[in-house]
Amino acid sequence: MKKNILIIPGDGIGQEVTTWGKKVLEKIGENYGHEFSFDEAIMGHTAIEATGNPLPDETLAKAKASDAILFGAIGHIKYDNDPSAKVRPEQGLLKIRKELGLYANLRPILLFDELLDASSLKPEILQGTDILFFRELTGDVYFGEKNRNEDNTFASDLMNYHRYEVERIARKAYDAARTRNKRLCSVDKANVLETSRLWREVVQEIAKEYPDVETEHMFIDNAAMQLVKNPKKFDVVLTANLFGDILTDEASQIAGSMGMLASASVGDGTGFFEPIHGSAHDIAGQNKANPLASILSAALMLDISFGLQDEAKAVTNAVAETLKAGWRTGDIANSSTEASKILGTQEMGEKVLE
Amino acid sequence: MKKNILIIPGDGIGQEVTTWGKKVLEKIGENYGHEFSFDEAIMGHTAIEATGNPLPDETLAKAKASDAILFGAIGHIKYDNDPSAKVRPEQGLLKIRKELGLYANLRPILLFDELLDASSLKPEILQGTDILFFRELTGDVYFGEKNRNEDNTFASDLMNYHRYEVERIARKAYDAARTRNKRLCSVDKANVLETSRLWREVVQEIAKEYPDVETEHMFIDNAAMQLVKNPKKFDVVLTANLFGDILTDEASQIAGSMGMLASASVGDGTGFFEPIHGSAHDIAGQNKANPLASILSAALMLDISFGLQDEAKAVTNAVAETLKAGWRTGDIANSSTEASKILGTQEMGEKVLE
Ligand SMILES: CC(C)[C@H](C(=O)O)[C@@H](O)C(=O)O
Ligand SMILES: CC(C)[C@H](C(=O)O)[C@@H](O)C(=O)O
Repeated sequence: MKKNILIIPGDGIGQEVTTWGKKVLEKIGENYGHEFSFDEAIMGHTAIEATGNPLPDETLAKAKASDAILFGAIGHIKYDNDPSAKVRPEQGLLKIRKELGLYANLRPILLFDELLDASSLKPEILQGTDILFFRELTGDVYFGEKNRNEDNTFASDLMNYHRYEVERIARKAYDAARTRNKRLCSVDKANVLETSRLWREVVQEIAKEYPDVETEHMFIDNAAMQLVKNPKKFDVVLTANLFGDILTDEASQIAGSMGMLASASVGDGTGFFEPIHGSAHDIAGQNKANPLASILSAALMLDISFGLQDEAKAVTNAVAETLKAGWRTGDIANSSTEASKILGTQEMGEKVLE
Repeated sequence: MKKNILIIPGDGIGQEVTTWGKKVLEKIGENYGHEFSFDEAIMGHTAIEATGNPLPDETLAKAKASDAILFGAIGHIKYDNDPSAKVRPEQGLLKIRKELGLYANLRPILLFDELLDASSLKPEILQGTDILFFRELTGDVYFGEKNRNEDNTFASDLMNYHRYEVERIARKAYDAARTRNKRLCSVDKANVLETSRLWREVVQEIAKEYPDVETEHMFIDNAAMQLVKNPKKFDVVLTANLFGDILTDEASQIAGSMGMLASASVGDGTGFFEPIHGSAHDIAGQNKANPLASILSAALMLDISFGLQDEAKAVTNAVAETLKAGWRTGDIANSSTEASKILGTQEMGEKVLE
């Protein structure tokens, strides 16, 4: 198989972690006889520094021309503390999601048995948890009209959904539920929001096309609670952009650390694969970041964009083996981990490659 | 002291639990020589059934005339499954919040040592947690203009804040932080939302008036994660209406159960006191609901609306004693609780009264 893959490291720890996602893809190419060619492009704070634009035209053109994209992270503390900045790194990420039509963000919460102890939740609460989130990614209050009045006394963002936006992601989520435990939980705030009421109506309609899947509707506040109380009760979770952002970060604690979670953003064209963790500038360049989420993002790319299930499995197994052998990065170590087993980004990457 | 208190049981388990909040207030009145008089009014589904209106004029008039309100819960599954219903129980609650100007919702996450085991979080993660949430309650996407187009293919809700709305709740939260551990964490999504950028700007300004309080700004996705990972790091949390709704329900798992959490909604007039749990129709009328959140709401009323700190403490102590003696309702029992120690609503209420 011949594929051309674009690497967009982005900001902060993005460079360090995508290095390892890429090396794993190269290795898979060698071992399985695929021709993966790689290109690189800039985005976010890095791109603002270089060009003034968080998503330069050249990056967008390369992205559209590639078969799949491996992305690192975005953001910089400088903008976080300056709410009045007009140009911001995140605009690059939001624009590429929109331009590539990446309306479905898949976030699997995969629990490695070896990491049961790394979580703040009790092992008996966690054991057996396996959730697949479908977060809508190109609508909601993220992309609605924004306003600020002239004297800075008022600001607004329009939360909104079109019926077709809900339909297409709902179908993807139901299709996935069919191949899993046949349960789908749709999360909204239909007791308050009109947007959520439309969401719920549409999901109720699509549900009729999937009589073999059991549907539940849950309010976001309750879902945020149930996820901690009893994560096992979820199979596929379908939700809007903002609620999905919140719930999946919360769910990262189930997997022991954000450093473990990969995500796939797909739509009708090129797929986009990224860890759910952020740019973590506080540890950038210190060889401390956990590269596993980027490596697992590469596995999702092999599986979802290229249909290479065996190769994807080989990567996931390599990660599982490494954890089984006791190797940990700092974020997934705990008080009983031997100091000699705690690795830096690079050493962890190498263990998985082996 | 002479006070007139309005009881609004609302829907579902509301009637059962407010019964005990009221009894505790009566008892405190007797023991401390206060003249508390009580009236009752309807709201929510109960009020829709009786009058067609989730907040009848009579209820609103009584509410405005009272010194404080003890509220139960609101909502009914009938409307949840019918997203097209025009009249909904929750409208009553939202309207009374707006009409009484209850812009600050205080939700203390109080951890009783006896309940450390009832949580799904590990005891060592929980121990020492003490968070006070300030949730803005009369703005945000809850009250912005709602739209639905004629052919039902589009829906929207306007998320918005005025500067003065952020200022007044920020001051309340900072004032409280001063009397506690002097740390305030403001939660927003300023990397995406204009509303959040205004929010952050205003909080940064108000922070200057409180140089003795340490301010941190956190994105909502990160906050949802940190709350599970390391709840001890929070002291006062200040946030908008929607984010506060989500975070406080999530935080209820820290306290072991939603059945334990009380809240106070205050503004410039009458205070409004309610459990954060919902109407829980599945257990309504079965003598299963936990009355402690309503009882602790009564304690908040004594403290915040009437300035009766000793009386409030007496109530909180009675709850603590009851838990120490091993008594539990089903929601806060665990596998090691003796069956004979598990009580119904009424029996638990009586134990606290004793
Ligand atoms: C960086 C930010 C804009 C982004 C989001 O909110 O979508 C991130 O939190 C994510 O979840 O991918
Ligand atoms: C019932 C509902 C409208 C309400 C809210 O979202 O505010 C509830 O969840 C709460 O937290 O008080």
